[in-house]
Parts: sequence; structure tokens; C-alpha cells
Amino acid sequence: MENGDSRVRSVEKDLKPPKTPARVIGLTGAPGAGKSTVTGALVAAFLARGVTVAVLAVDPSSPFSGGALLGDRIRMQGHATEPGVFIRSMGSRGRLGGLSAAAPQAIRVLQAAGYQVILVETVGVGQAEVEIASAADTTVVLVVPGMGDSVQAAKAGVLEVADVLVVNKADRPDARAAVRDLRAMAALARGGWQPPIVTTVATANEGIDDLVRQLDRHDAWLDESGERARRRLARARGEVTALAFGQLAGVLAVPDSLAARVADGELGPHQAASELLAAAGLAGA
Amino acid sequence: MENGDSRVRSVEKDLKPPKTPARVIGLTGAPGAGKSTVTGALVAAFLARGVTVAVLAVDPSSPFSGGALLGDRIRMQGHATEPGVFIRSMGSRGRLGGLSAAAPQAIRVLQAAGYQVILVETVGVGQAEVEIASAADTTVVLVVPGMGDSVQAAKAGVLEVADVLVVNKADRPDARAAVRDLRAMAALARGGWQPPIVTTVATANEGIDDLVRQLDRHDAWLDESGERARRRLARARGEVTALAFGQLAGVLAVPDSLAARVADGELGPHQAASELLAAAGLAGA
Repeated sequence: MENGDSRVRSVEKDLKPPKTPARVIGLTGAPGAGKSTVTGALVAAFLARGVTVAVLAVDPSSPFSGGALLGDRIRMQGHATEPGVFIRSMGSRGRLGGLSAAAPQAIRVLQAAGYQVILVETVGVGQAEVEIASAADTTVVLVVPGMGDSVQAAKAGVLEVADVLVVNKADRPDARAAVRDLRAMAALARGGWQPPIVTTVATANEGIDDLVRQLDRHDAWLDESGERARRRLARARGEVTALAFGQLAGVLAVPDSLAARVADGELGPHQAASELLAAAGLAGA
Repeated sequence: MENGDSRVRSVEKDLKPPKTPARVIGLTGAPGAGKSTVTGALVAAFLARGVTVAVLAVDPSSPFSGGALLGDRIRMQGHATEPGVFIRSMGSRGRLGGLSAAAPQAIRVLQAAGYQVILVETVGVGQAEVEIASAADTTVVLVVPGMGDSVQAAKAGVLEVADVLVVNKADRPDARAAVRDLRAMAALARGGWQPPIVTTVATANEGIDDLVRQLDRHDAWLDESGERARRRLARARGEVTALAFGQLAGVLAVPDSLAARVADGELGPHQAASELLAAAGLAGA
């Protein structure tokens, strides 16, 4: 599936969704925010409840996928051999359809495999992360005190997708300032759900209970408000669009002759795009 | 044009490219790398030669465009009133076709307006920046010593697109280590052009002459090697593809009923994509 193998198409109709759909929780934040440690702590918390957990660690900047985990992800390995846990890292750079296609497909497979909670961890803060977050039911954004993370996250539009905000490494001196900054920014949030701010010291397992509680609160709100159905519909729409565009990439390959006319300034690019669509039997909107 | 106004299509055929196409130079690097200061110094250097310069500051994370410049970009304002200089910031978040469509169009207009050098500055390090870089003839990647920038840049695939590497703030203690790291990574570069590493202290105008010299060297190499023509062809192809997809977005809107069947697990997303294409009179590749 990660390789865009066409056999996925014939397999997908056999992927029956479970009666109770999995809870998909996205975690994002700048490098060094402690995402893997928080993810590890959440895995332990859910396992303690008897809930099966899958972790999908997506690195939008890496072309590599596989079971081999990179860098600090090793720390999660402690859980990798426990029953009821599945951990896989996934590079998505340069894939057809990008993240918007790859992550939802992986989630679909993990859900069909019966995992009750799917944690999707993404490295970095940026548009790619916002995209992945949009595939989750609940999105957790991590910041660390004194790193300017909250400002960066705000700039990248990441705070707008946050359902739960976590100030990790909250034993650092600037933790209160970070909470204050986030509170000010979160106050501007869309109506309906006010993102709570949780402080954690994930390495010491501090604040994880509170985080789980806020995740549960958001999960309940998703059903009460009808937001879960809206999000799942939007996600399905995005996935289908990305796949349709992917399937069209071959049809819409730009011939050399057409590209050359644009490069030479003979033809405007909009005009060339219209010609391309017309040649494929399509009229643009 | 930034708003995706359809009148752009009728205007573009009147945009005649100049006899000598503009030199398009992309600058990218992490926040705090000193991009604006380096850009400002380059503007001054080109102006001193009697060359007209346009600066396009693209912020992939911002939805805002305009003449109003943000944050440290203010520092460039000193040049904004000089004759022969044009400076504009451009947000591109959430735009149809994204950066791959917006930046080349802006470059086309600035070129038609007669600017001889176009500096495209992008904020941040990531896929978006790689995309913008691919719109330039020469791409400059800035790193600062001791910030782990080079590692981050390598991870994001930014080094792969670097034609000239700049270690800015080279008066910092870790400058030599940064140069050494970059040299090791640059040695892995694609054949043909070996990216030089320039050290600068842009705030003191140090190293800017050397940077301009390396930019000129690369510019000459582009012609000798035939690489300029290859890049322009690839850029035209990318631009046409992005616009064609943009024009199709309306045609390929996913109906609610189809999205609902996917969300409910009744229909696989690949199958739904095929149905969507078929309904639009298209067969996928």
C-alpha cells in the first residue's frame, strides 16, 4: 500500500470496517517536542485499559518506510513486542497523492485489523502535518516551553487544527509563559470545542492521565456534536479526491512539445492547461 | 493573480517574455537563518551593478498576501523605495494549486515587467520550500551554525536542491563544524555541479561579494551545461500540470453520497475514485 501497488485496489473491498470504528488520534509538534515519549506513554495508558493500539509514525520528509524505526522512536520499541501493539514508521516524501492518500489508507488497514486506538504521529510542524491531522478524529499538538514552538505552530496553521494542546517538558522554567501564550491563541479558536491545554512531563509519565482524560472528553464531544460524522465525511472526500488525481496523473502527463511552448513563452500556462485537458477529452471548470 | 482570478487567463497571452529572461534565484532556510538580511544584501549588490531586482517573499504557511511586509522583512524596506526594486510578500496557504502554481505565475509577471533578477525568498524548510526552489534557476540554501539546520535541511530533502550553500552568521563559534557537515553532505550531490559553500555575516555585509560570485558562476554553468533549458522545461511542465489539476478540481468534486459510502465503509476509496472519474467521462491510468 505504501508503494502505491495497484493490487491495493482489489484488496480494499475485502477490508471490512469493524462495528465500532477505531479512535484515530493524531499527534504533531516540532522536532524535540517529545512526541515519541508522549506517544509511548499513551500506548502504555491505553494498554493498561485493555485497549489495542497501533502507532503510525509518519515522516513527511523521508522517502523511507518500514519497520525499522528512526532516532528517538527507538524509545517506543519497549512496547513493540507487547501483545495488542503495532508500530510502524512510514515515509511519504514523493509518494503519489502524498500524505493525504497514504495516511488514510494505512489507518483503514489498521482499523480493519481490529486496532481500537490508532495513534498517528507526525514529525515536524507544517502544512504536511496539518494535512495528516485532518485524517484524525482528535488532533493533539505538542509544544515545549521556550522554543518559540507555539508561535511557529500558530504561523503554520497547526493550532487551528488542535483539539488538545500539550505543553510537554513542563518542568522547564518557561512552561507558564507557554501555557499563557497558548491560552491566548486558543481563545481565538473556532466555536463549539475549546481546546484544553494539558501540561506534561512525559519522560516522568506526569500529566498523561490528564491527557487521556481530555482525549476521552473530546471523543465524547465528537459524538454529541455530530462532529465525528462531519470529519469522517470530509476525510473520505479528501481521500477520494487525492486518489482520483493520482489516477489522472498518467492521463495528464504534459507532452514535451507543449512544455517547450510554455517555456519559450509562446503559450501561457493556463492556455496550455486547457489544451491538455481538451486533449484528454476534458473541459476545465 | 494571487487570488486565482480567472481574468489572469486572458491577460497571460499579452505577457511577452523579455529577450533575455530574468535570472530567478531562490533563497530558502529555516526561520532565523537570516534570509531577509541576505536578500537585502543581494538586492544592494545587484542594484550597485545597475541591475533591476524584484523580491518575492513567499510564506507557505500564511494565507495573507500583500505589500504589507511581516516581521524581519521590514529590514528590506530600506530598499523598497529605491528605483529598480520591487518587493512583495505572498502567502500561499490554501490556494488552489498551491505554490507550484502561484510562484511561477508571479515570476512570469515580474519577468514581463522587465526585472532582470528575481529573488524568491521562502520562509521555513520543508517540502513547500523544495517546490518553490524548483521554480528557480539557482537555489540558495541558508543554514546557521549550531542550530541543527543542516541536519533538518538534509532530512527535508532541501540540500538536494541546493546550488549554492550559505553558512550565515559565520562569526558564531560552530561555523566551521557547520561548513564541515555541509561539505560532507554536499559531496553526495548529484553529478555535474558541485554546490559551493559560502560563509557570510550578512548583517555586516561580509561574504556577500563571494556569494554573488558563486551565483554568477552557477548562472554561467546553467548555460554551458544546458541545464537552464532542462530546468525551464521541467518548470513549465509542473506549472501546466498544477493548473490543469486546479481546473479539474470543480469537475472532480466528490458528491456527498459518494463520500458517505466511503465513510461508512461500503465502498473502497480507490473504487470511489474510479467511479468519480468514470462519471466525469474519464478513465484513470
